[in-house]
Amino acid sequence: MQQAVPEPQSFRRVLSSMCTEPHPAAREAAVRFLATNPGDPGTYGAAAELEARAVDALGELAGLADPHGYVTSGGTEANIQAVRAARNRARDEWTSPPESPNVVAPESAHFSFAKAADVLGVDLLTVPTDGDGRADVDAVRAAVGDDTVAVVGVAGSTEYGRVDPIPDLAGVVEAAGESTPGGDRPLLHVDAAWGGFYLPFTDHEWCFEHAPVDTLTVDPHKLGQAPVPAGGLLARDRATLDALAVETPYLESTSQATLTGTRSGAGVAGTVAAFDELWPAGYREAYETATANASWLADALDDRGFDVVEPDLPLVAADVPESVFEALRKREWRISRTGRDELRVVCMPHVTRRMLREFVADVDDLR
Amino acid sequence: MQQAVPEPQSFRRVLSSMCTEPHPAAREAAVRFLATNPGDPGTYGAAAELEARAVDALGELAGLADPHGYVTSGGTEANIQAVRAARNRARDEWTSPPESPNVVAPESAHFSFAKAADVLGVDLLTVPTDGDGRADVDAVRAAVGDDTVAVVGVAGSTEYGRVDPIPDLAGVVEAAGESTPGGDRPLLHVDAAWGGFYLPFTDHEWCFEHAPVDTLTVDPHKLGQAPVPAGGLLARDRATLDALAVETPYLESTSQATLTGTRSGAGVAGTVAAFDELWPAGYREAYETATANASWLADALDDRGFDVVEPDLPLVAADVPESVFEALRKREWRISRTGRDELRVVCMPHVTRRMLREFVADVDDLR
Repeated sequence: MQQAVPEPQSFRRVLSSMCTEPHPAAREAAVRFLATNPGDPGTYGAAAELEARAVDALGELAGLADPHGYVTSGGTEANIQAVRAARNRARDEWTSPPESPNVVAPESAHFSFAKAADVLGVDLLTVPTDGDGRADVDAVRAAVGDDTVAVVGVAGSTEYGRVDPIPDLAGVVEAAGESTPGGDRPLLHVDAAWGGFYLPFTDHEWCFEHAPVDTLTVDPHKLGQAPVPAGGLLARDRATLDALAVETPYLESTSQATLTGTRSGAGVAGTVAAFDELWPAGYREAYETATANASWLADALDDRGFDVVEPDLPLVAADVPESVFEALRKREWRISRTGRDELRVVCMPHVTRRMLREFVADVDDLR
Repeated sequence: MQQAVPEPQSFRRVLSSMCTEPHPAAREAAVRFLATNPGDPGTYGAAAELEARAVDALGELAGLADPHGYVTSGGTEANIQAVRAARNRARDEWTSPPESPNVVAPESAHFSFAKAADVLGVDLLTVPTDGDGRADVDAVRAAVGDDTVAVVGVAGSTEYGRVDPIPDLAGVVEAAGESTPGGDRPLLHVDAAWGGFYLPFTDHEWCFEHAPVDTLTVDPHKLGQAPVPAGGLLARDRATLDALAVETPYLESTSQATLTGTRSGAGVAGTVAAFDELWPAGYREAYETATANASWLADALDDRGFDVVEPDLPLVAADVPESVFEALRKREWRISRTGRDELRVVCMPHVTRRMLREFVADVDDLR
């Protein structure tokens, strides 16, 4: 006999994920658009029009008045595509195209850049972060060479929620351009996949309005409260998107700049619905609640004698013994670890103070 | 004032798409799994378990008892990943790794292979089809060289629904291996993205049980009646999936063989629900109905003096004047064109005889 399709996990004990419960309005819109494909605008016109609205919304969030881009399957696709655009532009436009193109990224960059490097055949040059987990600008400068097609800055790192000094990285990129005959320079890509919907409410300088950023990843299906799959790739210049285009016979449109072909209209519709509902007041409230929760949790863990990494954005890392970690997982807490084996708790919109109190009570019980 | 999120198109006049209305059971399962990510099995265990069931189901469909693979965002990702695996295996395993890897594909292959070539830095060698739109085996054989990492066969081509002679292509691949010192040979990839859920009910030899196929694309969100996004990549050998793996810190799993990161649990749950409901009787019925519809439409267009490409799988192409085509689009018919500017009608499960009668009545009215 066939098993039925089971229930999904509840978010009641999920502290590890950078995804969350979609906003009800986003869920409703997504359900209506489940059978649409913005990748085929000739057939699915409403989904394609919504995608244009989604890109405008993300541009508003990230300080870009006339954004180019699209709704990706997630941050990984957006990061791969940003590197691909940089590689292709260098190959096709530079006075001296690089023989072995490379990308310079801080060690805090998401593993999708390692994936991008393998997929695209570029070298990933990883440089150290400073003592606080932010890109070391001198190390980035030292690593950038004639074959560097892109420099990556992270705005809200996956492990510690750190924001790299984006204007300083822009300075590195600009200086690199001044030292070449053709003025060719690497593109500056910012990965704000997670942080992008919290950062507008902080003092961080992270986006297009703060520096000459070329491309940026920001994911509606993370803090944008849209359903999976909804990532975002934004580009300042049309030429960057054009560098990704391939011809598309048998679709009514003539070219496609996306990595995937058929795409999710549900994610697109959910993005627009969530943004309409939450920008900016709802997102600000989510940020403030999460910040207070992260601060509370960091204090609670510190009070208990654990080494806590001071949170900046609402993501808490703490050095909790392996035995406690495993015991917490046995109690169905969905938690994960940093590369240094610290406990890592991501304060997403579904993470309430009550959840965190229960969690800390379990920590007390188990340590 | 904000515009509301509009209604999506209805499928009432969609004749151009290879996607369709999801089965109600698939829709219901997808809605429940909207906020899950099988790419993070430590957190979203139910979605990850469903994905294993989905891969087994696709293996059953495609004649592979112990399938390796995953649910992709669609056929494009699956095709890119198949080529990437072939490229990586040649690079890492061949006695003489290719300097300039290439892929040999018939000109009927989907444009995602051109995308794969750009993304992955491999050359795409396109060879002619025979007079009937199937891969010309002699032309494929002539194109395969020492740097060929993959040969592509199409099982249900996008333009004409043609099925390449897969066992013959397997023979080409095998012969290529016999002529190299290390016995290294290209991988054989079959793109059955669209055809895969119709082909089990035909006499075609297209899948793992008919030939030593290495990888195969088959998309639940096309004829599988699952919601977007749900594609499928299957591989005969574990090593092929392993060639795609990158390490994944901060997830509880340790590596990831997918192209995207966060993935749609909705597509996965919808795939399992549709398969449970429809395999095999429901899919067979859909195939038989579509075949009868395609035959009826081909006859109707032929009766009216249009040149019709004899359908094999249920996809009808006919030489209809540009003016009629445009007038049909103005009446909201969602139709598309082949590379030779023929009208192309894909007989999907939502395409009923009544729709086709209305369509032909409009053709009569407009020609």
